[in-house]
Amino acid sequence: MTTLAELTDLGLRWDAYGQSGLSGPLLRLAEDLDGAFRRLAAQWSATEECPPPTLPASVLTGHLRAFPQQATFAIGLEPTDANLGEFADGPVVDEEGSVVLTRTGPVTAVLTPAACFHVYAQRRGARLAQAAYVTTRTTCFRREERYEPLRRQWSFSMREIVCLGTPAETASFLAETRELVDDFARLIDLPLSWSPATDPFFRPHRQPGFLLQRVLPVKHEAAYGSLALSSANRHHEHFGSAFGISRAGVPASTACVAFGLERWLYAVVDRHGTNPDGWPDLTTLTDKVVTR
Amino acid sequence: MTTLAELTDLGLRWDAYGQSGLSGPLLRLAEDLDGAFRRLAAQWSATEECPPPTLPASVLTGHLRAFPQQATFAIGLEPTDANLGEFADGPVVDEEGSVVLTRTGPVTAVLTPAACFHVYAQRRGARLAQAAYVTTRTTCFRREERYEPLRRQWSFSMREIVCLGTPAETASFLAETRELVDDFARLIDLPLSWSPATDPFFRPHRQPGFLLQRVLPVKHEAAYGSLALSSANRHHEHFGSAFGISRAGVPASTACVAFGLERWLYAVVDRHGTNPDGWPDLTTLTDKVVTR
Repeated sequence: MTTLAELTDLGLRWDAYGQSGLSGPLLRLAEDLDGAFRRLAAQWSATEECPPPTLPASVLTGHLRAFPQQATFAIGLEPTDANLGEFADGPVVDEEGSVVLTRTGPVTAVLTPAACFHVYAQRRGARLAQAAYVTTRTTCFRREERYEPLRRQWSFSMREIVCLGTPAETASFLAETRELVDDFARLIDLPLSWSPATDPFFRPHRQPGFLLQRVLPVKHEAAYGSLALSSANRHHEHFGSAFGISRAGVPASTACVAFGLERWLYAVVDRHGTNPDGWPDLTTLTDKVVTR
Repeated sequence: MTTLAELTDLGLRWDAYGQSGLSGPLLRLAEDLDGAFRRLAAQWSATEECPPPTLPASVLTGHLRAFPQQATFAIGLEPTDANLGEFADGPVVDEEGSVVLTRTGPVTAVLTPAACFHVYAQRRGARLAQAAYVTTRTTCFRREERYEPLRRQWSFSMREIVCLGTPAETASFLAETRELVDDFARLIDLPLSWSPATDPFFRPHRQPGFLLQRVLPVKHEAAYGSLALSSANRHHEHFGSAFGISRAGVPASTACVAFGLERWLYAVVDRHGTNPDGWPDLTTLTDKVVTR
């Protein structure tokens, strides 16, 4: 197992709250990995979209109810002079390092929990004349009980490739993208195994989503050892119905393949060692996958 | 003036809370602009650092007291089963689109207000044997009374080039980087003018920082018309003292040049029109600046 000290030498800056900063070899490797995933996305001529960092709470009601333990909200002080003055005249931050808040404004924005939500929210009401392929990368926030450098973080980078189309189009997309991921992992000598998975629902047995995931194989994860690096998700018409997106006269099916950048980073270092000279040349190798 | 409809056609997705998503020509232009700024940073052989999205509140006490109206905090629900259950059993989001919070946990993290804070915080206690040059890009959050697409946003991308060194090293850095910015702006035919500026302090006349900015020319902004695109900031030993960073046996001086990416984007479109064919070729032109 690669240690924090080894990762620090490679450019990891691990913060007190379960987040990472990157520089040096790890930052270059992260950019190369993301470049490789973008090349996989280019197989679908996927459009690149760079979303804002938050989502409106109003589009996430169901998600927040299912995963309240993971949510991170963006909040500000109520912007009246009296309230701001009370804040500024107070201790501001206490001895434990916590902000001593005065009155706060309403919370209307949630820090992005999953990159692909933006893709659906942006297409509200759209009628798709053909399947749509999109790729996006965002910083996602998910609170956990404990954090581990690169492997389990409060905030992390998620690259996704998303398909919106008919059930057949999304099924083909998932099957072929999983094959591309497998080819890529084989070329960089990273042993991956796919298996069905469920999301960490709050009170799972009272959640329709969890029960669905138990009955239907809607989510599969590709793991390096016990670490899930990527997931392939079939949402059926869930988002198509929720956002009024149609394809061929009925609610669109959607599917996505997600890459947890920091986890891929960890896996490459763990597999190929802490000397960057031993890391695979991702650019050249990705060419081999995408031109097969 | 370029309209929201024109910007939307070019790939802007303007959200309800004063933030932008980008795709298409605007996303490519944003990446090209950032590439150009990185090439300016390369003149200083600046190290690239990619920080986490938040800063510990404990390093921002002075900043929060000076700019409480701008701060955005990251907050989660108190993670007890009872509290999460109360949240999930409630309305979650009300009719106005605001989250119906139950008890929240302590706020220990602040969404980054300025990219360069990470650079100083990471070097706490460092003794610099030579001047250090760093470049970084982060999503910054600053609440405002009103927002305008690309020109004034709650969240936006800030690229910075930072120098930590002696007073003479930081002074040279600022003078030369301002010249590089001027050369670049001239090559892309963007009229810029520099002038002294002050930050929007809360209750400015009670703030030592504001009084300093009024007396000493520590902040200069480069504006396109009335829109400040970049700033050059001389912090003297403020951050060197605060973070115990020394250079040549005394607290290090620091200085930074910041680029507001969305504002540069707006300026290029406003100056060169809404047809991407008329936009300057940033890669070729930047080569001319950096090899002069």
